[in-house]
Amino acid sequence: MKPAAPLKGTLFLVPTPLDFGCTPQDPAALALLLPNETVLVAARLRHWIAENAKSARAFLKRVDGDRGLAVPLQSIHITELPRQVHKKGDHTPTGAADAQARALLDPALQGHDMGMVSEAGMPAIADPGGSVVRAAHALGIEVRPLTGPISLMLALAASGLNGQSFAFVGYVPQDPAERGRRLRELESTALKAGQTQILIETPYRNAALLQALLHTLHPHTRLAVACGLGLPLQCTRSALLSEWKSGALAAGLPLDLPAVFLLGR
Amino acid sequence: MKPAAPLKGTLFLVPTPLDFGCTPQDPAALALLLPNETVLVAARLRHWIAENAKSARAFLKRVDGDRGLAVPLQSIHITELPRQVHKKGDHTPTGAADAQARALLDPALQGHDMGMVSEAGMPAIADPGGSVVRAAHALGIEVRPLTGPISLMLALAASGLNGQSFAFVGYVPQDPAERGRRLRELESTALKAGQTQILIETPYRNAALLQALLHTLHPHTRLAVACGLGLPLQCTRSALLSEWKSGALAAGLPLDLPAVFLLGR
Repeated sequence: MKPAAPLKGTLFLVPTPLDFGCTPQDPAALALLLPNETVLVAARLRHWIAENAKSARAFLKRVDGDRGLAVPLQSIHITELPRQVHKKGDHTPTGAADAQARALLDPALQGHDMGMVSEAGMPAIADPGGSVVRAAHALGIEVRPLTGPISLMLALAASGLNGQSFAFVGYVPQDPAERGRRLRELESTALKAGQTQILIETPYRNAALLQALLHTLHPHTRLAVACGLGLPLQCTRSALLSEWKSGALAAGLPLDLPAVFLLGR
Repeated sequence: MKPAAPLKGTLFLVPTPLDFGCTPQDPAALALLLPNETVLVAARLRHWIAENAKSARAFLKRVDGDRGLAVPLQSIHITELPRQVHKKGDHTPTGAADAQARALLDPALQGHDMGMVSEAGMPAIADPGGSVVRAAHALGIEVRPLTGPISLMLALAASGLNGQSFAFVGYVPQDPAERGRRLRELESTALKAGQTQILIETPYRNAALLQALLHTLHPHTRLAVACGLGLPLQCTRSALLSEWKSGALAAGLPLDLPAVFLLGR
């Protein structure tokens, strides 16, 4: 008689606070930032898939400080996403990436619940992890997303721009001419279709992107910039381009923090 | 001598659990679903703007059950968004709507912190409230978005579809011919641009939308359906259209619950 296959575990998508690397971390403050359900699940999982193992361990230390891990941190298994799987911007499903993603889910096939984390925020949104989720569906593993901060959506809500039609377009080109073309294209979509366009940039290029936006967009286009969401210094400004021109709104924006840029009408 | 203007209050965007109207509500369970920061802020605010005053009071009762409100519920001011401001799909800024939205923010101009809630989830995302946020920016009132569940993003993460480029397109037409055209248009964008397309429908039309998707999309297009996010019965299925065709994936999906539909490659 063939032995019964073990019941499969569940893949939990575990969001993390947005303050990694930005503020001193007070482990006790975790419950301020995440719902109990998210922390309780994180506290009991022994098998993790992580964008970065070091960040994942730092997160689990905070969970330990909040309510204690079910097992010592040293005995928790953390596997990093292979580079090929999580190369920024590369999310076209390929056979090789899918095979690697499936291998990561072996513990779930053995019956263990698993967690996936990115460096900050929600895995698989503006972050790698989608290939693992697809592999889970293909293998019949249940996927459960948990609640936590998602900077793109905090920014969208705080912008006052249209939240009933919007697109996240990621990064724009660095070359000034190409960037200008792309920004005009996004502005045209935003104005014609009424679809808010959401962009991000690496923090050290935030100031350059803001200058390019101020230089390129039409006076009647609305621009919002949300900096440092989830951090004490967080700040969102939203106004028509003509109002941004004076420079008063841009002054004092903490553009060295992670930022989200939004444009629309 | 002119008296000094009072310091302005802050407008907090307060997300609420996704289970309104779907499950019996255990007030004590609120901390499972929302971070403490969100509940603590909600517990102390005396001035609210709400999509629906009845839902807002039900939410505040849950906050009261969790940690007690700073003042009795009866003495909390709740003002509903005017119909003109929050008519579904109407978010083109107009002078009249902007003026109404500004009037709602009077307490903040008098120095009171305020909260805004929608019926479930995050205000101003797939929900009204954007006009109030724009008015707050115009009046120099600080806007602070708080963390909570956002069904569109839970669905996107759980779908395994591209989370580095995506668009929320709202509702599709009800007329079968128009709906088919619109779905083919969305599929074309999803496949050509690699941009995941996210749709919603009112629950009683979910089954019809799923049938239309199964009938219209190409066999190699990936379709995900996430039902009942935030509820115990939640369930997400993600597969190629060719795999959906057998009917096994669709069977047992709780399509009577709120659902999010996603398509991509």
